[in-house]
Amino acid sequence: MKEVFVHPTAVVDEGASIGEGSKIWHFAHVRGGAKVGKNAIVGKSSYIDTGVELGNNVKVQNLVSIYNGVKIGNDVFVGPHVAFTNDLHPRAAGEWQISPTIVEDGASIGANATIVCGTTLGNHCLIAAGSVVIRSVPAHALVAGNPATIKGWVCKCARKIAGRDLPSGTHEIKCSHCHTINVFEVP
Amino acid sequence: MKEVFVHPTAVVDEGASIGEGSKIWHFAHVRGGAKVGKNAIVGKSSYIDTGVELGNNVKVQNLVSIYNGVKIGNDVFVGPHVAFTNDLHPRAAGEWQISPTIVEDGASIGANATIVCGTTLGNHCLIAAGSVVIRSVPAHALVAGNPATIKGWVCKCARKIAGRDLPSGTHEIKCSHCHTINVFEVP
Amino acid sequence: MKEVFVHPTAVVDEGASIGEGSKIWHFAHVRGGAKVGKNAIVGKSSYIDTGVELGNNVKVQNLVSIYNGVKIGNDVFVGPHVAFTNDLHPRAAGEWQISPTIVEDGASIGANATIVCGTTLGNHCLIAAGSVVIRSVPAHALVAGNPATIKGWVCKCARKIAGRDLPSGTHEIKCSHCHTINVFEVP
Repeated sequence: MKEVFVHPTAVVDEGASIGEGSKIWHFAHVRGGAKVGKNAIVGKSSYIDTGVELGNNVKVQNLVSIYNGVKIGNDVFVGPHVAFTNDLHPRAAGEWQISPTIVEDGASIGANATIVCGTTLGNHCLIAAGSVVIRSVPAHALVAGNPATIKGWVCKCARKIAGRDLPSGTHEIKCSHCHTINVFEVP
Repeated sequence: MKEVFVHPTAVVDEGASIGEGSKIWHFAHVRGGAKVGKNAIVGKSSYIDTGVELGNNVKVQNLVSIYNGVKIGNDVFVGPHVAFTNDLHPRAAGEWQISPTIVEDGASIGANATIVCGTTLGNHCLIAAGSVVIRSVPAHALVAGNPATIKGWVCKCARKIAGRDLPSGTHEIKCSHCHTINVFEVP
Repeated sequence: MKEVFVHPTAVVDEGASIGEGSKIWHFAHVRGGAKVGKNAIVGKSSYIDTGVELGNNVKVQNLVSIYNGVKIGNDVFVGPHVAFTNDLHPRAAGEWQISPTIVEDGASIGANATIVCGTTLGNHCLIAAGSVVIRSVPAHALVAGNPATIKGWVCKCARKIAGRDLPSGTHEIKCSHCHTINVFEVP
């Protein structure tokens, strides 16, 4: 069984669950009640809140905050400085109400993106760097901007590809880079 | 009297003033000459520069930088990854000239917002996540975007509410969520 | 010879090169193979990856990530929370392909800007706070927005100045603040 690596400067609280082969880097903090899958990475100075679930092979880069209410699937890339949220009406005073956020398998979130809670980021979507996501993102969609809007569709290898609608209400993109044929539903 | 809590990994420099009941979390740095009010929170890896004032019950989330020249009132929420600035013409070489920034009581700043200096954020305003604030924000305004512009008006509980102008040059919103009646000046 | 200062909480890996007079602040991490010039500053919680080069007198503020493939000249200001990237097609699985990024002498990058890789930021350009840079930026240009676009031209002292085209295909701005005459090529 592969060991878990926790850098000496990182803080992993009692009650955190970290899968085999995962690495927690410098000055990161994983709170009790967080679940990190196998072969995952939590980058420098990042924060994994209680209640958060990260799947297998997830890469969380530097300086990321993931809050209670966020569930992340397998093979997800979370770029540096990405900020999740968990309350649509934040105030210093008063109660706190969590709106859940889901990131599906294979999704990628570019550097410094902001993910407003209550959204679902579909499988293999690509959130461009600096995006402010305020609505759910369909599978394989490329979104960018503030607020983020759909700019096209991407392959599993993250290349943007022009595709075609199929009669069945799905969309097909054939990737000229990795030769994968992706078929997925479009909203 | 409630004690001050400073996590063992945080750095609080000599000459910093921290009010009773406040908590300074992991890897945060509060510099000498900073003033933090009572029952305030400074989140993981955040930075409170010399000369900064934070009021009572302020919540500063993770990975926030607040620079000399910024004064923050009571009951303010500063979301994760928020970046303040203090010089309108930054260069590595040459002198540094501070433009002051004021955040009034009850304001909320969403995750990953950028606050350009020389601005005032009015009481109970709501800066949406990912906003880039380059102009002052009126009391109770909801702003969003890059650059941030006014999208509506919010209650003290942060819900967006359609309101009505009063003859006296003020604006009134009655909140259907918390039943507060907010009356405030509009610019 | 001026000494190098490394705060006790910072991590500088073996094989990192740091020039005389430079300062590495709290909770920063400089990796082996990184080259930092003379009289440079690496701010709190920032990250300098292997392969990165920083010139002399560079100021990297708090909570910045600079990745392998980025080369930064002399006298460059990198504001707080700035995120660089190094792969245009990030996925958790599969290979990693670096697109190089160059920041030329005297450039300034405002707080919380995102720099997409494969770009060149020209000498003395000014990237406004919160910008998302997806294309190369000419020398002396002021860019802002998401995506960042050219808003005007700035002096070496970072003031925005109306200028005039010269017959030779260059542009001239005379600064009313510092009285410098800047002549540079326009694309």
